Amino acid sequence: MVIVGIDPGTHRVGYGVIKKTGSSLSFLEAGLLNVAVGPDRLPAIERSLKELLDRALPDRVGIEKLFFTKNQKTAIAVAQARGVLLNTVMKHGTPVVELTPSEIKLAVAGNGRAEKRSVARMVFRFLNIPPLRSPDDITDALAIAIAASSRRIDI
Amino acid sequence: MVIVGIDPGTHRVGYGVIKKTGSSLSFLEAGLLNVAVGPDRLPAIERSLKELLDRALPDRVGIEKLFFTKNQKTAIAVAQARGVLLNTVMKHGTPVVELTPSEIKLAVAGNGRAEKRSVARMVFRFLNIPPLRSPDDITDALAIAIAASSRRIDI
Repeated sequence: MVIVGIDPGTHRVGYGVIKKTGSSLSFLEAGLLNVAVGPDRLPAIERSLKELLDRALPDRVGIEKLFFTKNQKTAIAVAQARGVLLNTVMKHGTPVVELTPSEIKLAVAGNGRAEKRSVARMVFRFLNIPPLRSPDDITDALAIAIAASSRRIDI
Repeated sequence: MVIVGIDPGTHRVGYGVIKKTGSSLSFLEAGLLNVAVGPDRLPAIERSLKELLDRALPDRVGIEKLFFTKNQKTAIAVAQARGVLLNTVMKHGTPVVELTPSEIKLAVAGNGRAEKRSVARMVFRFLNIPPLRSPDDITDALAIAIAASSRRIDI
């Protein structure tokens, strides 16, 4: 089973692709979606995710649930981008698993309030890869993929 | 010039299509986009708007800006749908005008804090049509189209 994790952030959208064989997980690829700045932003997000889905052909996609906190403007922009991401996955016909930050932490580090560092360490251990020197968004996306690998389908 | 106004709401997405000839406005059509409930919701919104754009061939699309207030869950759902709407308009290559509620009220009723009823009355007067017995979403979408008809392009 191939799982894509997506971390919809403000400036970046991280993704991680893993494979589950029996109960063991392995790393396939990870990176950032092409998020243009300006009027082409939303269409570029759709194109970039569609390319990834066509290439990885995942059995499911995990995506973080949003909770709004401080900055409303940012929150609206992230939610709009997340709508485009969800729509793209649905049009691709791939099942979606939506996870809260604490569900992700619980699944990956055994504690819904685990620190970012502990979650990252467990991601690298699960996938048996050296620590990534890359934006947090990518490690977070891999954590989402790991958490989604053992969850029921939401959509 | 043909202008489509879109009112992205919680349960409904209203639209209104008007024509501007010189300085006079006329009504072309109005209604609700097909907003399915369930997993097909976002793809259905995209399909329904795309059909409208293909049919109306607008020169510009006006869409209300979002401000989050009470219900976060609702706000996220509306913002996600708005992302899909914006993306659909952008892929169609149609310029977008984003308007705040007070900009719409100011443009239509001469007062940024005008009451809903005054705005509706002015919509029917501008378009020279009898009052619509229809959801507010449709009258609001026509108000957005009227306000967008005299504004610069944002995107």
